[in-house]
Amino acid sequence: MCGVFGIHGHDEASNIAYLGMHALQHRGQESAGLVACRDGKLRQRVAMGLVSDAFDRATLANLPGETAIGHIRYSTAGSSELRNAQPFLFEYAGGSLSIAHNGNLVNADELRAELEAQGSIFQTSSDTEVIVHLMARARAQKGSADVVGALIEALKRVRGAYSLVLLTHDEKMIGVRDPNGFRPLCIGRLKDAFVLSSETCSFDLIEAEFIREVEPGEIVVVDKSGMTSHKALPAQEPGSGETFCVFEHVYFARPDSLVNGKSVYRAREKMGHHLAREAPVEGDVVIPVPDSGVPAAVGYSRESGIPFEMGLIRSHYVGRTFIEPQDSIRHFGVRLKLSPVRSLVDGKRVIVVDDSLVRGTTSRKIVKMLRSAGAREVHLRISAPPTTNPCFYGINTPTRSELVAASHTVDEIARYVTCDTLAYLSHEGLMASVGGTGYCSACFTGNYPVPLGSSDLVQLRRARV
Amino acid sequence: MCGVFGIHGHDEASNIAYLGMHALQHRGQESAGLVACRDGKLRQRVAMGLVSDAFDRATLANLPGETAIGHIRYSTAGSSELRNAQPFLFEYAGGSLSIAHNGNLVNADELRAELEAQGSIFQTSSDTEVIVHLMARARAQKGSADVVGALIEALKRVRGAYSLVLLTHDEKMIGVRDPNGFRPLCIGRLKDAFVLSSETCSFDLIEAEFIREVEPGEIVVVDKSGMTSHKALPAQEPGSGETFCVFEHVYFARPDSLVNGKSVYRAREKMGHHLAREAPVEGDVVIPVPDSGVPAAVGYSRESGIPFEMGLIRSHYVGRTFIEPQDSIRHFGVRLKLSPVRSLVDGKRVIVVDDSLVRGTTSRKIVKMLRSAGAREVHLRISAPPTTNPCFYGINTPTRSELVAASHTVDEIARYVTCDTLAYLSHEGLMASVGGTGYCSACFTGNYPVPLGSSDLVQLRRARV
Amino acid sequence: MCGVFGIHGHDEASNIAYLGMHALQHRGQESAGLVACRDGKLRQRVAMGLVSDAFDRATLANLPGETAIGHIRYSTAGSSELRNAQPFLFEYAGGSLSIAHNGNLVNADELRAELEAQGSIFQTSSDTEVIVHLMARARAQKGSADVVGALIEALKRVRGAYSLVLLTHDEKMIGVRDPNGFRPLCIGRLKDAFVLSSETCSFDLIEAEFIREVEPGEIVVVDKSGMTSHKALPAQEPGSGETFCVFEHVYFARPDSLVNGKSVYRAREKMGHHLAREAPVEGDVVIPVPDSGVPAAVGYSRESGIPFEMGLIRSHYVGRTFIEPQDSIRHFGVRLKLSPVRSLVDGKRVIVVDDSLVRGTTSRKIVKMLRSAGAREVHLRISAPPTTNPCFYGINTPTRSELVAASHTVDEIARYVTCDTLAYLSHEGLMASVGGTGYCSACFTGNYPVPLGSSDLVQLRRARV
Amino acid sequence: MCGVFGIHGHDEASNIAYLGMHALQHRGQESAGLVACRDGKLRQRVAMGLVSDAFDRATLANLPGETAIGHIRYSTAGSSELRNAQPFLFEYAGGSLSIAHNGNLVNADELRAELEAQGSIFQTSSDTEVIVHLMARARAQKGSADVVGALIEALKRVRGAYSLVLLTHDEKMIGVRDPNGFRPLCIGRLKDAFVLSSETCSFDLIEAEFIREVEPGEIVVVDKSGMTSHKALPAQEPGSGETFCVFEHVYFARPDSLVNGKSVYRAREKMGHHLAREAPVEGDVVIPVPDSGVPAAVGYSRESGIPFEMGLIRSHYVGRTFIEPQDSIRHFGVRLKLSPVRSLVDGKRVIVVDDSLVRGTTSRKIVKMLRSAGAREVHLRISAPPTTNPCFYGINTPTRSELVAASHTVDEIARYVTCDTLAYLSHEGLMASVGGTGYCSACFTGNYPVPLGSSDLVQLRRARV
Repeated sequence: MCGVFGIHGHDEASNIAYLGMHALQHRGQESAGLVACRDGKLRQRVAMGLVSDAFDRATLANLPGETAIGHIRYSTAGSSELRNAQPFLFEYAGGSLSIAHNGNLVNADELRAELEAQGSIFQTSSDTEVIVHLMARARAQKGSADVVGALIEALKRVRGAYSLVLLTHDEKMIGVRDPNGFRPLCIGRLKDAFVLSSETCSFDLIEAEFIREVEPGEIVVVDKSGMTSHKALPAQEPGSGETFCVFEHVYFARPDSLVNGKSVYRAREKMGHHLAREAPVEGDVVIPVPDSGVPAAVGYSRESGIPFEMGLIRSHYVGRTFIEPQDSIRHFGVRLKLSPVRSLVDGKRVIVVDDSLVRGTTSRKIVKMLRSAGAREVHLRISAPPTTNPCFYGINTPTRSELVAASHTVDEIARYVTCDTLAYLSHEGLMASVGGTGYCSACFTGNYPVPLGSSDLVQLRRARV
Repeated sequence: MCGVFGIHGHDEASNIAYLGMHALQHRGQESAGLVACRDGKLRQRVAMGLVSDAFDRATLANLPGETAIGHIRYSTAGSSELRNAQPFLFEYAGGSLSIAHNGNLVNADELRAELEAQGSIFQTSSDTEVIVHLMARARAQKGSADVVGALIEALKRVRGAYSLVLLTHDEKMIGVRDPNGFRPLCIGRLKDAFVLSSETCSFDLIEAEFIREVEPGEIVVVDKSGMTSHKALPAQEPGSGETFCVFEHVYFARPDSLVNGKSVYRAREKMGHHLAREAPVEGDVVIPVPDSGVPAAVGYSRESGIPFEMGLIRSHYVGRTFIEPQDSIRHFGVRLKLSPVRSLVDGKRVIVVDDSLVRGTTSRKIVKMLRSAGAREVHLRISAPPTTNPCFYGINTPTRSELVAASHTVDEIARYVTCDTLAYLSHEGLMASVGGTGYCSACFTGNYPVPLGSSDLVQLRRARV
Repeated sequence: MCGVFGIHGHDEASNIAYLGMHALQHRGQESAGLVACRDGKLRQRVAMGLVSDAFDRATLANLPGETAIGHIRYSTAGSSELRNAQPFLFEYAGGSLSIAHNGNLVNADELRAELEAQGSIFQTSSDTEVIVHLMARARAQKGSADVVGALIEALKRVRGAYSLVLLTHDEKMIGVRDPNGFRPLCIGRLKDAFVLSSETCSFDLIEAEFIREVEPGEIVVVDKSGMTSHKALPAQEPGSGETFCVFEHVYFARPDSLVNGKSVYRAREKMGHHLAREAPVEGDVVIPVPDSGVPAAVGYSRESGIPFEMGLIRSHYVGRTFIEPQDSIRHFGVRLKLSPVRSLVDGKRVIVVDDSLVRGTTSRKIVKMLRSAGAREVHLRISAPPTTNPCFYGINTPTRSELVAASHTVDEIARYVTCDTLAYLSHEGLMASVGGTGYCSACFTGNYPVPLGSSDLVQLRRARV
Repeated sequence: MCGVFGIHGHDEASNIAYLGMHALQHRGQESAGLVACRDGKLRQRVAMGLVSDAFDRATLANLPGETAIGHIRYSTAGSSELRNAQPFLFEYAGGSLSIAHNGNLVNADELRAELEAQGSIFQTSSDTEVIVHLMARARAQKGSADVVGALIEALKRVRGAYSLVLLTHDEKMIGVRDPNGFRPLCIGRLKDAFVLSSETCSFDLIEAEFIREVEPGEIVVVDKSGMTSHKALPAQEPGSGETFCVFEHVYFARPDSLVNGKSVYRAREKMGHHLAREAPVEGDVVIPVPDSGVPAAVGYSRESGIPFEMGLIRSHYVGRTFIEPQDSIRHFGVRLKLSPVRSLVDGKRVIVVDDSLVRGTTSRKIVKMLRSAGAREVHLRISAPPTTNPCFYGINTPTRSELVAASHTVDEIARYVTCDTLAYLSHEGLMASVGGTGYCSACFTGNYPVPLGSSDLVQLRRARV
């Protein structure tokens, strides 16, 4: 996953973008980057790691101007190298152009081969670079100076998930959402400035006002004369409507954000309610796996009447490089991050609520940890359906063969995880919680709303054998 | 505050100590240090910052041996400099000696002046160095080789709060708790090794078994033949019994620890119950200030029947150096760390539960943040009595003039904080929550169980004028 | 300036390239980079700063393979940013390709505009990227798989100075020198491996044997079957023969290198001889400006019979960021690097030999420093003609308006520099020292052997007004 | 070795001290430290590494005041740890005191044992700490407030080499040189400020005027009323006069310094003259081992009439951590630092002049390097006598068993080094070069002017067996 941000028309554009990106940090910790524009020159800073590591006062001072765009990367397509860190910065016939992308294209490999055959050279292994090449080609063929026209031509060729923020050397900021609207992109105002961000939590931090979401298939262009909207992108698949990623609600977005017009916290709390109704169990205490499991656990507790307790404590001091002892105590990963409160679980029948179970290894460690803290029974409740299929639209799920639910029954998983009972939320329960239709839930169902590319299909087929 | 740790008789002593210190990280983030012993040589590593920053595989490999002690510092006495980072390491007639100290001596200034008059030189501004000078003098005068004897002589002269862990060049590990037992110190076992730690949460992390607390006034000595106990320290004040710091329960210790034999989580939850009974208010939702306010908020919600929600989200990515915008948006400190969930508070009567209100500035920002997220009413509930007096026994409270409750009524504070209503837990309610007697609650009452030193009294008097 | 290096067929290719680049460090300190090939994959590491800062054991271990190319950058064309650090790495229809370039193209701007008009996008501001785009276009148009053919097509379009080392994903290492042979490029052997380097001092360090120089207009290709040579590049300017840069001998190359078949040290010593004959002066001592002025000062001393002394000491500890006092003592730049030996100059008539005088500011400081150390007279002798014209072929000279000799007479310069007498070597003396014809000395004469591009001409004209 | 610096009465004391220490960097690269005084408070900064690494604008800004002392360390006594980095900073009955020491005490172990028996505790493994303990004891016994009196009492007890600079909290700067005057210490003036430095090259850099040397056995005290001199230290050994370290002239001091009143450059040049007379040889070229061998090579060339050439080039880019290839090319240490100029040595009879030959390993590599560059004969000339004895007065020579000349004849060494002939300067020639008497040359003769301590004698005896 990734996060994108943009601001147009603010004295301290890069400072504000820095804060806005900080609020999106949960969407990716691999790299962070900013491009700002002053006097027709785009200046770039990208670095591996967190926003707060990538920038300091000096680096921000080197990014002057009233317009800036930023990107937070959580590697999906393209390998983990600095040269894949966005926003990318290119020069082409139209001048300088910067682009930041959240999502994943499914036909990038095919387009890349086609472009190379025409003499294009590539500098990154990212799918995003394809979009700019297509723009440059469109501009060359049409001879037109219109960046929006070139962008539309380019996007007609690509297929997949994309929420884009672009910045041109003449200070046009452009926001785009693919016709399916897989990934979020929101519009806000901060005094006279326009702001774009993957999530509304950015707006709260910088005290901007949330205006509306960019609509699926919409292109918004902000320049000195204000914001204009273009709707020129055809459906990616005949008959396909909006298919917003339900996993944003389940796990990815921050609970204080609105996505797809709905409160993430409230949606998760409802998943807990539905889960309690669908999969009740006798127990003494309901505890969440913090932090993302908290709202669903609150919902489960309220619906079931079983007391909620913060039975697992999350440490705030887990650094990125932690040294494990060599022989004596292994597998500290989870243990360093989470600790059970013995006085809450000792002798108790514990219901643990988590938001997902992907490989099963973490859940297994949590169950063991609770038992060694004295839990008499451990009942695991997952506030989403089993994850059976990989995502090709920008969520960094493991390949199908690593998804435990793709090849094991719930009983088998429960045995592996060593819990007393295990239950998942049903697909219906999930849909009822997020309020309806217009979602992509391919990771739970295998119904991919936009046809996959050839390499994706190979991966899928291999896993199914 | 500080944390101390020690392990004796383990192949990977410094690796285990590193983990044990990590579990104590909440007790101080200013500096971290480790001293390990092999072949009669004590090796030291101290650094400013977190445990995970101070050590890596290479620095730990330079600390070989089966015995190690560690220290986490949260500056109390002595200024914030590397030379005040513990464990200290000294050479004296008895050989090499290392010492780690949690607590604060109240007569260090007087003793220091006396020692300097006799020709001693000091290298730190820490009260702890006094103890070692007294040991060296005791040893010189007695001509005895007995480190425990010298330690007892030294401790008879000092007054105040001290939980100590010492390590000698001949691999004796010593644990001490002052006769009042102000600060915690626990004994554990990890296979054949003995472990000492400020809190039991260290034992859970390293999978050690909790044996018992070091008793007030007790000295435990661990060497190859096992552990022996000495009780040679007289009461610090005639008639004074045990006075364990109640603030450990209120705020300082980790909720998954046992301190003074009781669960910190449970004690805080009870504070929430008592608070709900003492200071009820009509409201729609109870939200904690995370993370330390969570148990009390759970208790308040359960007792009052008003729903608990995680209405403030705590960010995991707040670095230590964060850049604020210069003109537009100020005072980001709290805002970067906490964000309100608009969907939970908009239009609601919100009851916010926090564990303390020291200067009032943070509470004021939280109230404003909740109102700007739409809260109709904000009722602030503090799960402890008003903090009216500074601590001289090792908690790093502000001076009296900075304690808002020392010079303002509850109504005045409520007006400053801009909440609709404000209420604190009563002293009786607090004592009922932690189960009784044997506590120091000087910060709430001004009753200091061990007489203060002259410089402390000057500070107190000045504030009272 | 820059330095290029390549090695083909060695177990420790990147380690050897690292050493070879270290020997070229004097050719540029802005950035350093390495690309190595294994199993069809090119791996890249570039960083700002010195070779020894850019690489450590871990980064070299991430560059496995038997073939590697490297680059040392001293910014000429393109601004000082990491994205301009070479070797560049591209993907195109022919696979992966890496390129390292020493020199400067004069028609890059025109070619870039043409390529952009055809839909190419650029990621660097470097002239070098143009070459790869031309290769990709040539390959696309011809549909040929032949990288050498595409390279020849591309180079027929570019004009200027280029010594190139390229590496393909199928482990072909290619060396090229432009038809004028502006910049050096040498071929060596290290056991079975072929080595390319800008200067022979690399070969001495890695104990490789110097075979010969790549000839002007020659393309050498090294693959598993050995080395083949191609001569397909036409003259850049009708009638233009070889024009090796004389400034390599004057200043740029290392004294222990052979360039253009001649010893740099010996050439500089001869410049000193000629200078002593052309511009004799009565004096007590001849001192060099170390280190580059030493050979010429030795020559001057020998020819004149006036004793040579090391009258200026060069410090080895001048870091890159040095703090100057704010009010009291300013202009430490030269002073920190060079100190006069008072006992050698006090009361003496001092002849100072330097290899160049570009802006005059450094010479002025040296003269003042010598006078304040007691020198009775200071006579400045420059072992090259006055630098009157900027270089457009890859030496990073200042613009014409900053070249003091472009607009001032020798007398005026002497007055500015405050020396008693000033003399330069004549152009004839210089040519006699380096042995003849076939040199570019445009920086001294203004005769540019390859026609300049339009932007270069604008710069020249502006300075002449 | 080490370097000491002090300045009293300058607005930018720590900035000037930083520069002064930079000029002393050749005297030690292990650690650097500064202590400055303002308003009765001494502030300290010490760090491992070079001056330019240890300080930046921010750290210097944290060292305000008009008085500062500094230290450059090249570990002699005490191990290589940050806690041994000077200036040390202590608190004692007289207030705060900082001390910087160049030299080595020979009876530190005995004094330390005595002090520990009286109850002193030590925090460093440095001999210097003993001096401060003795001062604190003297002050305690006398009850006097006089820091100079306490210093005199302390110094009467110590034996060995010491040039000290001290700073008190009431802004007294004190300079001391032991009665033998082993190590240099000079007095300078910078406008109204007094300056102390190990060498006069510091004064040249900061544009201070050299006044005189601190005399052996003299204590100078600088305070607001000016400078006063005390001569209260008795001879360390009956009948012993001044014994300035001749190795400062041979190798250690910078050539542009005056030490013991004489030019270091000129002394070295004379060594070359004497060496040419004592050990002539037929040759084609005289080349120095740069940089320290240059003056003697100039002298040798002039006396012998054989041309001087800079036949070995010293690299400016040798970082402190350099990676060697693993299998192919080893022993890069010397090779990275020095490269032969093939055109100067190929086919020649080469006379190499170096200033010392300690273990022989470096000379051996240089000889091999010259031969592989084509030298027909290599004659090694050392501008000092054979180093046969370790130094106990502050030069960091190897132990006696590592000194090749302690156990091998000149012929044996020549064979090991693989040169054609080898010759050393005679002791008489050395003394004639430095102008006379009053030198310690124990490292060449074994005559130690101040009796050694017991541990030193053990080391000597062991090596002799």
